[in-house]
Amino acid sequence: MTELLGRPLVVANAGVDLFADELERQDVRVERVEWRPPEPGTEGALARLAGEAGTIARANDEAIARLEDAQPVLAGVGAARDLLPDMSARTILHAGPPIDWADMSGPLRGAVIGAAVHEGLAEDRDDAARKAAAGAFEFGPCHDRGAVGPMAGVVSASMPMVVIENPAHGNRAFCTFNEGLGKVLRYGAYDGEVLDRLAWIRDVLARVFAGALARLDEPVDLRAMTAQALQMGDEGHNRNRAGTSLLLRALLPALIELAEPEAEKAAVARFIAGNDHFYLNLAMPASKAAADAAAGIDRSSIVVAMARNGTEFGVRLSGTGDRWFTGPSGTVDGLYLPGFGPEDANLDIGDSTITETVGLGGFAMAAAPAIVRVVGGGAEDALAATRAMYDIAWGESRSYQIPALGFRGTPVGIDCREVVRTRLLPFVNTGIAHREPGVGQIGAGLVEPPMEAFAEAVRALAGP
Amino acid sequence: MTELLGRPLVVANAGVDLFADELERQDVRVERVEWRPPEPGTEGALARLAGEAGTIARANDEAIARLEDAQPVLAGVGAARDLLPDMSARTILHAGPPIDWADMSGPLRGAVIGAAVHEGLAEDRDDAARKAAAGAFEFGPCHDRGAVGPMAGVVSASMPMVVIENPAHGNRAFCTFNEGLGKVLRYGAYDGEVLDRLAWIRDVLARVFAGALARLDEPVDLRAMTAQALQMGDEGHNRNRAGTSLLLRALLPALIELAEPEAEKAAVARFIAGNDHFYLNLAMPASKAAADAAAGIDRSSIVVAMARNGTEFGVRLSGTGDRWFTGPSGTVDGLYLPGFGPEDANLDIGDSTITETVGLGGFAMAAAPAIVRVVGGGAEDALAATRAMYDIAWGESRSYQIPALGFRGTPVGIDCREVVRTRLLPFVNTGIAHREPGVGQIGAGLVEPPMEAFAEAVRALAGP
Repeated sequence: MTELLGRPLVVANAGVDLFADELERQDVRVERVEWRPPEPGTEGALARLAGEAGTIARANDEAIARLEDAQPVLAGVGAARDLLPDMSARTILHAGPPIDWADMSGPLRGAVIGAAVHEGLAEDRDDAARKAAAGAFEFGPCHDRGAVGPMAGVVSASMPMVVIENPAHGNRAFCTFNEGLGKVLRYGAYDGEVLDRLAWIRDVLARVFAGALARLDEPVDLRAMTAQALQMGDEGHNRNRAGTSLLLRALLPALIELAEPEAEKAAVARFIAGNDHFYLNLAMPASKAAADAAAGIDRSSIVVAMARNGTEFGVRLSGTGDRWFTGPSGTVDGLYLPGFGPEDANLDIGDSTITETVGLGGFAMAAAPAIVRVVGGGAEDALAATRAMYDIAWGESRSYQIPALGFRGTPVGIDCREVVRTRLLPFVNTGIAHREPGVGQIGAGLVEPPMEAFAEAVRALAGP
Repeated sequence: MTELLGRPLVVANAGVDLFADELERQDVRVERVEWRPPEPGTEGALARLAGEAGTIARANDEAIARLEDAQPVLAGVGAARDLLPDMSARTILHAGPPIDWADMSGPLRGAVIGAAVHEGLAEDRDDAARKAAAGAFEFGPCHDRGAVGPMAGVVSASMPMVVIENPAHGNRAFCTFNEGLGKVLRYGAYDGEVLDRLAWIRDVLARVFAGALARLDEPVDLRAMTAQALQMGDEGHNRNRAGTSLLLRALLPALIELAEPEAEKAAVARFIAGNDHFYLNLAMPASKAAADAAAGIDRSSIVVAMARNGTEFGVRLSGTGDRWFTGPSGTVDGLYLPGFGPEDANLDIGDSTITETVGLGGFAMAAAPAIVRVVGGGAEDALAATRAMYDIAWGESRSYQIPALGFRGTPVGIDCREVVRTRLLPFVNTGIAHREPGVGQIGAGLVEPPMEAFAEAVRALAGP
């Protein structure tokens, strides 16, 4: 069987490999062979859904139209307590589906500890852990408050959030600022260096960044900027070098003219210029704003959220409301920093899969062949990954185009029926956190979502 | 016969198309078929050169080593009169091989007029033209003074030049600042808007830019930056969006901290951020610094300069000193701005082909499929263009890699013997100037150099 980045590729087989290979070589999309059985336990649900295929198609068309029509713009900056609903002083949000302290993985616990100390809710690690275990903090998913966060995704009351507005649908989404690499809260580190940086982000970066935004003639159009970045080797999830560069280029004159101390403006410029992932924390809420616009459409089988809390991977469908369908988080197949290996790795974690949900990240891998090199792949693997995703996507993006695929739009809008029918899981590329709290990032790679989350979603959509 | 962007592709034929196609599909380099005749009139020269193939190979290896070892860095800014040799107040340099006023095309004349007025050497258009015809100005190629210039490439005494240093070889190269698009001197425009901008570049941009450079901890490494830009959809000649963005990102903190009026710093930032071609005028002299290091190696058949003055296209070899081998400039096959067509176009013009000389531009087309769209091509054509150039190149770049070709290095170092033997001319992509002075840019596209320049070079290298 053909392998794609170490995973079996599901297209064709039974002695027709040569035929399929030739088609692929000619850039012809290879269709599924119908006799391949779907994920066991979903046959009945798929059959019931087949009976209303027309209704679902109309619902999915509407979902994709709203995804595609979204025009997320960078509207401003504010504190989480002022922007997110029901955000109390003791609220600590996290990535992925709901989870209690007892079930949290090391890096999520580490980030909770850091946030508690940052907010003055705890004295130190032990105090924070004791209070967390005693129920002193209110936990909840970022996704439920219109926010997203990479890796641990922890958000507490005083943290500054970028505000993304989607005037096309009248909704908003939020995200913290990216802290850079090394020891950072989102990878579960919480020492003095991490806390100092969080304070600087709150006290300096947020103000200077907001000031520069306010001076722009028009707000930054994140769909246009991300589309451009895809022409420049980014895929909008693990590679954001072009996005970060384009953002800085857009902000530069305003930043210079801003009436703030030059040392602080220069520090902000250095911080952004020194962090290729800065744009990720804009691409994510922009994706969330688009995905939220596509949510809540009756009978739609389109995935509108994929998120991991470090223990579980959760999926939401447009047609099944706020319900999370979950399975265990996967192990990331990737490249480790010196001194670390798979035995140190936490399970898959973070809300960053919102990018794959809207046709970026793994779905746009062909735009960023450098990404697949970390797992020993090459440009052809990157092309093959994106091509494979067309089989589980409902549409193709108008704005996110891949030069190497003749400017074809990326596959957009995961149809959960196709995932279980083809047994082809969404491609996700992600960072790897250490499994113990307090350590941080130890690598990056590719990960496979749990099929059972999609199977459960399909069964829920089909009903009893 | 297979066509590539409208030009016949020379590889294989005679009923073996299927075989060659299959090889190409498998990404196997298709070798020339030996019986194909070389360019008529070069058979004897090629035979004589074949007799010393070993000597030439050693010379070419040395030339490529110097090209590849070049480490061009952005060292500073100064006035042409202080930097370039023998630069008098009445000297006006131009792109391409030597040419007199009588033979200059419209856009080159327009740029000369603009420079003469800018320098106070003439009152207006008529005065400048009269003086030019009367021999009041000293004309000479940029290339002969260590400089390069895009399009008309006109340089006069007071113009600020960026200084590129190549410590690996101890040489330097120079270029003016890019003026942006629209009505600009390099396309032959010379009205008040053009002259005002030239004055601002001299009086403000040069000072602020130099000040920012001086504040950097280390000078900008242009080889590293261009290599990165090639991972981001640039090819270093007609697409420099990533390079411009990366440059701004590198300069940003220094620009903020610089003790200059904020309005001027912001104006400089806006000017650079608003011009995707700003980086071209750094990529060109960086290429010149590398190519000059490879020049002057006895018996080497490697091309170290390709340049056009709007009338003639000239080639220099490493092994034949300062001598130019010329042929008529070609017609650019491209896309025109509204209201213009091929009948308005000047012939091919500019020193920007120095980028193709070092493995960028047309040789790196596979990195920038967006470029070939202007002539109706697609991503496959871009890949094919770069692949074809391996047949006439002596080496492959270590630093300039193409993601879509599995990170293979670009073809680098044109061997003039291979050009005439395969009758495959270098791919060049370029802008189109209006043929009348004073108008400016009217399009962009691809152009074919004259084979006779390469044939003449081969005959000169072979000797009588």
